[in-house]
Amino acid sequence: MSFQQPIIPKGVRDFDHTSIKYRNYVLQKCISIFQQGGFLPLETPALEYLDILQKKYGEEGDQLIFKILDSGNFLSKISSEELQKHHYKMLMSKISAKGLRYDLTLPLARYVAKNHCDITFPFKRYQIQPVWRADRPQKGRYREFYQCDIDIVGSTSLLCEVEILLMIIHIFELLQIKDFKIKINHRKILQNIVQILGHADKEQLFCATIDKLHKVGEKKVYNILQQYNFDEAAIQCLKDIFQFQGCNLAKIDFLTQYFIQKKQSIASIKVIKTIVDYIAAINKNYLSYLDIDYTLARGLTYYTGPIMEVVIDNASGGSLGGGGRYDNLTAHFGLDNVAGIGFSFGIERILNIMAERNLFALQKEYTTKVMIVNDGEEVYNRVLPLLYLLRSYGISTEIYLHVSKLKKQLHYANKKNIPYVLMLDTKVQDNYVLKDMHSGKQHVYTQEELINYLKN
Amino acid sequence: MSFQQPIIPKGVRDFDHTSIKYRNYVLQKCISIFQQGGFLPLETPALEYLDILQKKYGEEGDQLIFKILDSGNFLSKISSEELQKHHYKMLMSKISAKGLRYDLTLPLARYVAKNHCDITFPFKRYQIQPVWRADRPQKGRYREFYQCDIDIVGSTSLLCEVEILLMIIHIFELLQIKDFKIKINHRKILQNIVQILGHADKEQLFCATIDKLHKVGEKKVYNILQQYNFDEAAIQCLKDIFQFQGCNLAKIDFLTQYFIQKKQSIASIKVIKTIVDYIAAINKNYLSYLDIDYTLARGLTYYTGPIMEVVIDNASGGSLGGGGRYDNLTAHFGLDNVAGIGFSFGIERILNIMAERNLFALQKEYTTKVMIVNDGEEVYNRVLPLLYLLRSYGISTEIYLHVSKLKKQLHYANKKNIPYVLMLDTKVQDNYVLKDMHSGKQHVYTQEELINYLKN
Repeated sequence: MSFQQPIIPKGVRDFDHTSIKYRNYVLQKCISIFQQGGFLPLETPALEYLDILQKKYGEEGDQLIFKILDSGNFLSKISSEELQKHHYKMLMSKISAKGLRYDLTLPLARYVAKNHCDITFPFKRYQIQPVWRADRPQKGRYREFYQCDIDIVGSTSLLCEVEILLMIIHIFELLQIKDFKIKINHRKILQNIVQILGHADKEQLFCATIDKLHKVGEKKVYNILQQYNFDEAAIQCLKDIFQFQGCNLAKIDFLTQYFIQKKQSIASIKVIKTIVDYIAAINKNYLSYLDIDYTLARGLTYYTGPIMEVVIDNASGGSLGGGGRYDNLTAHFGLDNVAGIGFSFGIERILNIMAERNLFALQKEYTTKVMIVNDGEEVYNRVLPLLYLLRSYGISTEIYLHVSKLKKQLHYANKKNIPYVLMLDTKVQDNYVLKDMHSGKQHVYTQEELINYLKN
Repeated sequence: MSFQQPIIPKGVRDFDHTSIKYRNYVLQKCISIFQQGGFLPLETPALEYLDILQKKYGEEGDQLIFKILDSGNFLSKISSEELQKHHYKMLMSKISAKGLRYDLTLPLARYVAKNHCDITFPFKRYQIQPVWRADRPQKGRYREFYQCDIDIVGSTSLLCEVEILLMIIHIFELLQIKDFKIKINHRKILQNIVQILGHADKEQLFCATIDKLHKVGEKKVYNILQQYNFDEAAIQCLKDIFQFQGCNLAKIDFLTQYFIQKKQSIASIKVIKTIVDYIAAINKNYLSYLDIDYTLARGLTYYTGPIMEVVIDNASGGSLGGGGRYDNLTAHFGLDNVAGIGFSFGIERILNIMAERNLFALQKEYTTKVMIVNDGEEVYNRVLPLLYLLRSYGISTEIYLHVSKLKKQLHYANKKNIPYVLMLDTKVQDNYVLKDMHSGKQHVYTQEELINYLKN
């Protein structure tokens, strides 16, 4: 028989029970906090129309969307003349109408626009599903990975920002990651700054550039800005703002004075101050997690208000999540004036940090509690009812499936981390020998004693 | 702003919180039983190479696999001459190397072949993930749907069959679906029958034909077989077997005598008898769930031993799951002599049946327990700490996000099925008014009383 190599595409992964256990541990904690805050789950299909997905993530994003070949004879409506042009982009639009989910925010906007008559607003939803990106695979970057998002759609209230911040704080505290910081900024603060610098027309470019600050360093960012005709004086202004050191309140005071001096509106600074005040009203200790950072930009073009990002000092590998306010994203789908705010937890990053810090150490293994030794078909009539009995008491139990040497059977139990191995007592009918695989010790029990022992 | 219609492709669905709750309820029950039996979870990627997926599901199956267009310029390696042939199948193989997961069995076989050095055999795994099929969408048939599979790989022991049957019985009992039957047959029994009929060479064709028996009726099946040159005598033999009525033991006795008379091996009947005996040893009551059915064929070509299917009498919409033994499926991927058996629970069908029977009625809604009324920013300093306090006691709580009319706020609580609405007492500082949304009654509590009341 000819055969195929059992390989999988680059950038995607199989997940064994240990990886699934760790991921579920983190996701269950997230879900418990989301539900405590009144967020409800939503799932959207893997397949969306390309019309929905494209032209929202930028040109690079469009290229990273996995496209699905139309079913059947996808060439039937294409003329030979068109084919002869040998133009893949033109052909692509004619042979592929659907693509794979690229993130969870756009499907949410599509869902809200589609179902807005039935949705109770403000709509608080969480969504945890894989997304696919045809990115170049590299360490820590995959072509299939889970996203975990919360969003509030349909409210401009600053309580939304507070709610999202509370979710973040409670989740990281629950996961025992306590050295995180939530960087906060406001897109309109950046707008004010770029006005002060004399380049009001270059806001997106400015945001995209300073978004790279922590990757490439301050010097490089100033160089790039100079190439875009930001002059010495502008760069000096920017340095004054970016290099200011101080606590959150000092930062707020500093920028307020600076903006007043430069005749800029201080409304967005007040917004940040109000959010910080609300968080302080809830729990003063939470203030230590907040870090106002005027260099924070968040690359995506759709943010319009407060933006935030979770980081850990001295940890490599980028942020543990990010988000912000993106008023009016549903307008792409014909529904205007719907405010929204969201945050995406970087599950892959969080899993890495937790593994590095051994935070999964105490997690219970998914495993069977008892393995019954298979002594041969002659005793199936005794051991099969026992298997059933133990399970009926909620004790996870399996029987070794083959008749084979005890050594092989114990090897299986060891490999699966099964803590107890059970044998029939050869001396006393109806007695059982239970071997503790950790200590190696054996005890003889009656059936009743056995169940009582294993139930605890 | 121009906009796109917020629509989704045919045959795929959004899942709101109620659908997710129901599905999770069923899946959690399945998982609890799987884990009780020592099965561990596995997840495989949505994307597999088409070399892996194709030529395993039959020609029709191959057409139903969603193909992913290669990234970048997928025409770069195709000559103009090739393009001019205007041949979509030829072109497809050159512009698409990957496809979407079509079921969970083949990815399992690929996984086992890839990782066989690290796997502890017998390998007992469960897998619950969506699959995609470019099928014509119709009532109850989707292009994206969940599959829920258990398999045991690496053992020929009949205890595997027993284990799978136990999983099925325990899950349906736990789901309160108690009128199910597990039809059982053996592919080798069908092989013996087709030999008796004098058409040993037409086994696959015979199985594919009788697989349609419950859809198209007995008469149609006999007609089709006649077209395949099964003569009157053969059809009469078949009728004798198919129309025999009796309990499981009577059916076993009947076919044993029949095979002896026709000089056929009775080994596969003995296998079925042994399985039934083992189930009886575990729990005699379980025998009522088993229904030996010599007309059961299961369409897929890869089954080689016992096969099974779960049905409910008088219920429309097909089986609630099916499976069987498929020795040596991993040979496709170069790993020989690995026995396997699996069963796939028809989650969509099970969900439908449970909804019809109102079996979700007692499921707790995912909802918030308390909504705090928003009386305006002046009191945020009082209500925000309260929000935090209630959550810290594990009481899911949200605050209405806007400052708006009480009527609108209560409407939101009603729509979200929130049972309690909380207001500040305007008379006594530090007292709270709790409104029971079901009875409409209001009570005044101190903070301590409030927490004690809501905790229970």
